[in-house]
Parts: sequence; C-alpha cells; structure tokens
Amino acid sequence: MDYSRFYSGDIPGLMRSPVREIFRKVDLNAIYSFAGGYPDASTFPVEDIRRITSEVLDKYGAKALQYGATQGVPELREVISKRYSVPVENIQITTSSQQGIDVCTRVFADPGDTILCTNPTYLGAIQSFKSYRANLMTLDAFKEAVARGEKPKAKFCYVIPDFQNPSGETMTLSQREDLVALAEKEDFLIVEDSPYRELRYSGEEVPSIYSLCPERTLHLGSFSKIFAPGFRLGWILGPVELLDKIYVVKQSLDLCPPILDQYLAAHFMGSGLLDQNLKKSIALYRTKRDHLLSLLEKYMPDGVSWTHPEGGLFLFLTLPPHIDTVALYDKALSAGVAYVAGSFFHLDGSGKNTMRMNFSFLDINRMEEGIRILAEVLKEA
Amino acid sequence: MDYSRFYSGDIPGLMRSPVREIFRKVDLNAIYSFAGGYPDASTFPVEDIRRITSEVLDKYGAKALQYGATQGVPELREVISKRYSVPVENIQITTSSQQGIDVCTRVFADPGDTILCTNPTYLGAIQSFKSYRANLMTLDAFKEAVARGEKPKAKFCYVIPDFQNPSGETMTLSQREDLVALAEKEDFLIVEDSPYRELRYSGEEVPSIYSLCPERTLHLGSFSKIFAPGFRLGWILGPVELLDKIYVVKQSLDLCPPILDQYLAAHFMGSGLLDQNLKKSIALYRTKRDHLLSLLEKYMPDGVSWTHPEGGLFLFLTLPPHIDTVALYDKALSAGVAYVAGSFFHLDGSGKNTMRMNFSFLDINRMEEGIRILAEVLKEA
Repeated sequence: MDYSRFYSGDIPGLMRSPVREIFRKVDLNAIYSFAGGYPDASTFPVEDIRRITSEVLDKYGAKALQYGATQGVPELREVISKRYSVPVENIQITTSSQQGIDVCTRVFADPGDTILCTNPTYLGAIQSFKSYRANLMTLDAFKEAVARGEKPKAKFCYVIPDFQNPSGETMTLSQREDLVALAEKEDFLIVEDSPYRELRYSGEEVPSIYSLCPERTLHLGSFSKIFAPGFRLGWILGPVELLDKIYVVKQSLDLCPPILDQYLAAHFMGSGLLDQNLKKSIALYRTKRDHLLSLLEKYMPDGVSWTHPEGGLFLFLTLPPHIDTVALYDKALSAGVAYVAGSFFHLDGSGKNTMRMNFSFLDINRMEEGIRILAEVLKEA
Repeated sequence: MDYSRFYSGDIPGLMRSPVREIFRKVDLNAIYSFAGGYPDASTFPVEDIRRITSEVLDKYGAKALQYGATQGVPELREVISKRYSVPVENIQITTSSQQGIDVCTRVFADPGDTILCTNPTYLGAIQSFKSYRANLMTLDAFKEAVARGEKPKAKFCYVIPDFQNPSGETMTLSQREDLVALAEKEDFLIVEDSPYRELRYSGEEVPSIYSLCPERTLHLGSFSKIFAPGFRLGWILGPVELLDKIYVVKQSLDLCPPILDQYLAAHFMGSGLLDQNLKKSIALYRTKRDHLLSLLEKYMPDGVSWTHPEGGLFLFLTLPPHIDTVALYDKALSAGVAYVAGSFFHLDGSGKNTMRMNFSFLDINRMEEGIRILAEVLKEA
C-alpha cells in the first residue's frame, strides 16, 4: 500500500540523521569511532545510580512512579534554580534538550519563517528546523542582508556558544554581545543551546547569552553530558511568558518528563554527586582532548588543520579542498574508522572537505591506532 | 516585553488541558478526586523496581545509561513482539503514548486537514489535534456527509475502542468491522489508542482494530496503566513504511526514548512480573469499579445515569439537562470533590450536563464519602 497521500507537508522534506543512520548499521564498539557525540561510558555513575534509585524510592515511594507536573518535578527545578541562580518559574524541564529545540521551533516557526544559525551547526537542530519547513539562513547572510539595507526578518537565532557542535569553538564575550545587540536591533529571539558548557578543560568561562539578555533568550541545558544521556532530561531557562507557551505545547507532546529519572537527577545534582563526577569527567576528557590533539599533530599529513577546543566533545578537521569526506566515508569505515562528514552540519552543502571528530567516546588507548588508520586513508586520498 | 509577534500560527489556538490545570492548583490527595486518570499508586511495583534496577545495572551496566536506538532498545521491542505477536519491525517505542498521538498527528495532519473522532473523546488527543490546527469532525458527521453524497476527506480516525476515555464504553466487534470497512471505502487511516486494553474486569475481549486491519491502523500502547506512568513509555504498532516516517520525526523530537526506563520495562514485562502485577491491579480496579457503581446506585438522585464499563479507569455520568458541570465545578471542589466536566471531552462544546469519573485513583475507603458529597452538590443544583 502506498501511504504518500496521507502524509503532512512536513514529511517529504524530512531529513534523516546521518549520525543515527551510522549507529543503526555499525557496532560502535567494534570500530575506532570518532563519530557520534556519545560520552565516555566510564563517566556514568552506575553505582551512584543504583544507590540513589533506592534512596529516591525510600523517600518518595510511589510518587516517583506516578504522573507529575508538566513543568517538571519541583525538586528538580529547585536544584537547577539553585545551581544556576535562576528563579524556579523561569525553568521548564524537558524530555531531552533535543525536545527543547523541537518545542522552541514549534512555538516560533511556521513554514517559511526564517531561523538563523551559524554554519556549520548541530545536525539535530537542522533536522528539527527542516522538519518544520523553516527557512534556514546563516547569521552571516542575515548580517549582509541588513548591511545591504534589506529588512530581513527572523524568528530566532540558534547558537551553541560554548564548545560548539561540530566546530568545538567558543564565542568570545564580544561576539555574544554583538549577537545580543543584533537581536535587539533586528528584533529576533536567541535559542542558546548549551549542552557542553560545564565541560571546560582550559581557558576562562564566558558569560552565557542568557545571562546577558534574559528577556530574549531561551537557554537549553542538558543532563546528557553531566549525568547520563540515557535519562533524556534537559531544561529550558527563559522568560515566564515564553515558558508558558512551551508548557502548553509540552502537555500535548508527552504530558510530563519521566518522573523517577527527574528525582534521580535532582538527587544527583542536589547532593553534590554531580560536581564530584563532573570533576572526574573533566579530567578524563581533558586528557583525551590533549591526546587527540597530539595524535593529529603526529600523524596528519600536510594540508590538514583542526580546531583546538577549550571544552566539549568535538573538534573539527579541515582537509585539502579536493577531498570529499562523504565520498571517503565508506573507505574509512572499511578500514575501521568512523567520523561524521562536515557537510552534514552545513546548511548549504558546503564543508565537503571537513569532518567532525568526537574525542569523548573512544577509549584513550585505542585513539592512536584510530588516528593512524584515518591518516593513512587521508594520505591515500 | 510582548512576545506575540514571535509565535507560530499554532500558538493562538493552543488549548490548555483543564485536567492538568486542576492538578496544578489542587493537592489530589487532600480531596476526594474522581478527576484525572491516575492509576492507584498502590499498584506501582516499588520493590520490584528497586530490585530490577539493580539487576538491569548488573546486566547492562553503562549501556543502560548511554544513548540508544531511536526505535527503542531491542530488548523492549522483543518482549512487546512476543507478548502481542507482532514482528519487531512493526514496533516503535515512544516516550509516552501521548507522544504516539502527537507524532501521528504531525506525520499526517496539515492545518485544515480533517481528523475524525468519536464525541466525546480523550482530551489530550483533542489538544494535540488542535495544536496542529487540524479540522476535527465527529465520525457521525462524517458518515452523514458520506450518506448525503458529499465526498468528505479525512486523514485518520482516532478511536479508543476499549473502555473509552471518557465514556468507559467498548466498541463491539461489528462496530470495529464497520469502522474498518468505512476506512477502506473512504480511504482514511485509523489511530487506535489502547492504553486500557489489558485492564478488563468483566465481559469478553474484542479483537483490536489493528488485528482486523493492520495495513491501515496505528495501534498505540502504553506502559502507564500496566507498569507505572512515571516512566513515560509507550509503543506504536503499525506498517513498516509509516513507522519509518515516525522514526525520522522522532529523531528530531527526542533522539530516543529513555534507556534505563526501557530496560526496566523490558525486564518487568519479559520476566512475568507484569502479568503478576496486572492480575492484582485488575482485581483491585474491579472491586473499585463495582464499589463506585453501587455507591452511585445508592446516592445519586433521580435523573442521573451512568455507563457500566467492562474495564479501564473511567465511567461517564449524564445529569439532568439543566445542570452545567463546568459551572458546578467550583462548588464541588469547595465541598471537597473533583471530577472532570464532560464538555471538555466534546468537540462541539456539547455534553454540558455530563462528567467523567475516575475510579482508579481514590482510596476505596474514601469513595463513599466522596460520592455522598457529590450527590449532595448535585441535589442542590
């Protein structure tokens, strides 16, 4: 049976995540994977979770298993409020920060509405924006249009200011201030996606965009990289009026975020376990980043350059212009190495000679062999 | 700051859940609540969950906390496949069956597209359909339009054939066959919402619509009433091609359902614990239903009638035509009793003299006092 006559207008333009398609076909543990954005599984606090599950069930009993408030359980909103010095009423818990992106797009974008992004940007955001048939425009193109005296309109600008996915780069304070000034002048909102902010390995913390301009910013936080991604929990900080709209949409999305998971996250964050664990994760990831940077230095042929991230999970490689990392992917995978081609993160199909490398997932002792193989594949090309 | 210029066209018509608004304001445990669709918290297997959390963490370790497949973890899809005799490839795990409703609406309905429903129907579905600006039409109105020789078009028909929310009624086999015949003749799909199907207290099981017409039906299952709602887990059974579209949309909704929760559900269902627990829940709810029916018989004044459900969580009261249950609500709440006004479940604002009563949540020993008070309020009106 052909079902195409039943589909909504969103469906023909749907974009599959190339990253998730890779995961579908390949056992990541069987290869040298620099693909994906998986945290190192050794950072997951398995024993803590076993213990705090028991403590949460002792304390809350059946309440931890019942339906709960759409905004999130009060205990979790309170620990987030305390940690980030934001009033409870400015906090909405989400079922993953991906849901945060989805719900913001839903609340603001009609088909054809313009959303601004950096180029490259996070694939899952591009996917969400395209699924709502929004018009994606690079921030640079928008600025040029403004400079030409056109009056371009945008609903919001999506940015990942800290240790960006995929580039690994961090916006300076003056870049953030410029973006806020532009948002105020040209009248758009800012969606600040911030899953990696607490994973800083060097350099100085820069104020969040939310802290610079709380009335125009929705700040998306995530437990995936500081607790465990399997819980699918995130949060949105934002103006009460915008969160109210998000709250009503969320009622029809999934009623409320998972309850037991929220109590576990609240307990983990509130009791100091998160900070203890984070300290260990940061030390591990710093070592991994430094190791990967030294391996790239050692093995990569001339003409290859890369970013030097101060935190997060990714760095970004630029290869000589004649190399197409999509075309090269199957060869690399056959040789045992996975990456994500950089063009997938570009709005305009550019970046063919780039790739994103994740340094959080792969065992540090297997990195050298992976990079050696990748360098061989690149040299052949 | 006024944000209205930023909103998408979905936002002005958003409908708040009156049920969730009640929960926001009232402590359900402090009143006699026949509102909501909360299971009895005593049915939640707290000790089983403590134990199987430990077993799952022993067995899967960090894997239970990592990202997972968008379709759901294989172990959970396999136990569902076995229990319901449906191939694994026809199963998509959802982050709640509310997400199942949302994602089906997203995949099929553009603004203005027609969705068919019974009248009354589930509030959360109406909310989702309206949030996508779909055109809601009762199944009866559609049939009349067909009979008049008009050629009405619908994308899908949404039904809850077993122990319907809010009516408590169950579709007979011939009603199901008629609906399937109509769907085939008039070319629409069927979304069969089935959260209560396993909670049957009397009467004979009727084949699911999915079993009668798998090529046109998406069947939504839920763990909320057979395990615990706090896990926010459900599933969709359907044709592979439709599930593939749902899968791609789900990537941008939340990447994947919560992982640890899925392993717990798989363990609970696969090990036989679910069936043991379900047996106890069914016995408890049967007693509660029978008790509520006998209390209505004892206390309700003349002119009040109600449905006699064979399962599920709800029955539906019809009062004399001059009584408006929305207008009466505050009085009832002041007297200590909560219900949900029936008009909220009606597409057309009708049903003003009806109310939904939930019999799963309230302690059985408190039911008599609650019904006595409600009967007083009704007599006064």
